[in-house]
Amino acid sequence: MNVIVNLSIFPMDKPGQSLSPFVARVLDVIRDSGLRHELGPMGTCIEGEWAEVMAVVDACYRELESDSNRIYVSLNADCRKGRDNGMDAKVRSVQDKLR
Amino acid sequence: MNVIVNLSIFPMDKPGQSLSPFVARVLDVIRDSGLRHELGPMGTCIEGEWAEVMAVVDACYRELESDSNRIYVSLNADCRKGRDNGMDAKVRSVQDKLR
Amino acid sequence: MNVIVNLSIFPMDKPGQSLSPFVARVLDVIRDSGLRHELGPMGTCIEGEWAEVMAVVDACYRELESDSNRIYVSLNADCRKGRDNGMDAKVRSVQDKLR
Amino acid sequence: MNVIVNLSIFPMDKPGQSLSPFVARVLDVIRDSGLRHELGPMGTCIEGEWAEVMAVVDACYRELESDSNRIYVSLNADCRKGRDNGMDAKVRSVQDKLR
Repeated sequence: MNVIVNLSIFPMDKPGQSLSPFVARVLDVIRDSGLRHELGPMGTCIEGEWAEVMAVVDACYRELESDSNRIYVSLNADCRKGRDNGMDAKVRSVQDKLR
Repeated sequence: MNVIVNLSIFPMDKPGQSLSPFVARVLDVIRDSGLRHELGPMGTCIEGEWAEVMAVVDACYRELESDSNRIYVSLNADCRKGRDNGMDAKVRSVQDKLR
Repeated sequence: MNVIVNLSIFPMDKPGQSLSPFVARVLDVIRDSGLRHELGPMGTCIEGEWAEVMAVVDACYRELESDSNRIYVSLNADCRKGRDNGMDAKVRSVQDKLR
Repeated sequence: MNVIVNLSIFPMDKPGQSLSPFVARVLDVIRDSGLRHELGPMGTCIEGEWAEVMAVVDACYRELESDSNRIYVSLNADCRKGRDNGMDAKVRSVQDKLR
């Protein structure tokens, strides 16, 4: 199946710090995977086969685990057979139908 | 507070139908609000004050309620005092810190 | 429609503090609403009509807004016409079908 | 780290069918894992080490993938070093602080 995950993951024990350095480290891990992805204001979308995408989610967690004592993860996935290039297709399909 | 919501809302009772017409109707409602927003593959981000953003979430639900028997909503919000133009700022702040 | 929301809401700016006092304040707000609810390890489920439930979500946010500079909200809702006592019914319906 | 995941996973292509048979199959998979878990109205909480919990999430997906063309997954995780028996501890800690 074609899987699109929106992943939001951040440490909860970094008082008064901006979270962007942690998000950047996570995004570096995602970029290294070579999977199609898209950074947004509330998470990064990653597209691929289920096992590929979940391996990246695992790597993102491992990246933060190294220096965090508490981590929050929020993940939504839309998994669909026979879809191709789902991230672009979904957005275009909605834009085509706007009033 | 500056609030950024990622809203995903869709009917669960539309067998074998593409969901994009429903997402387009929801996006039309969001556009009518005049609030800053951004369509993504896994939801639409909306930015504003809490009451403004939640009024739009309510309007989106009402739009689908008219002809759906079952609706699923997934919503994540990041609310922060003293932030301005948060959607752009968050993305830029991460991009500036990439390896 | 009968709406069941799983609400997780917490401050992100409380360094090294347990979050349970904040969750307890939120749960007090939910209890005051008189709506059916159920505390779980990852959020509290609230059941009612959409407007009722969202009014409680709003009150929970207002409770934390008073002394937090950053708040995270994660909310999932299952909304269904013609369902009654949905929280109990959903759990029982699954338990009846276990192997 | 001690990880508590709230997992909600369901097929999106089952027109007019109750979702409980699918949720029951998922719960059977979770029970087979031997991990601590708790069924709720909006998902099942699973507790363990990250790798253990994510292996169960993977098995749940595989269970539904066999006869679904579209699957939605919503997952939230709270991961904390040095916590033990987190599901019970979190709930009790909140209940102790209610007004």
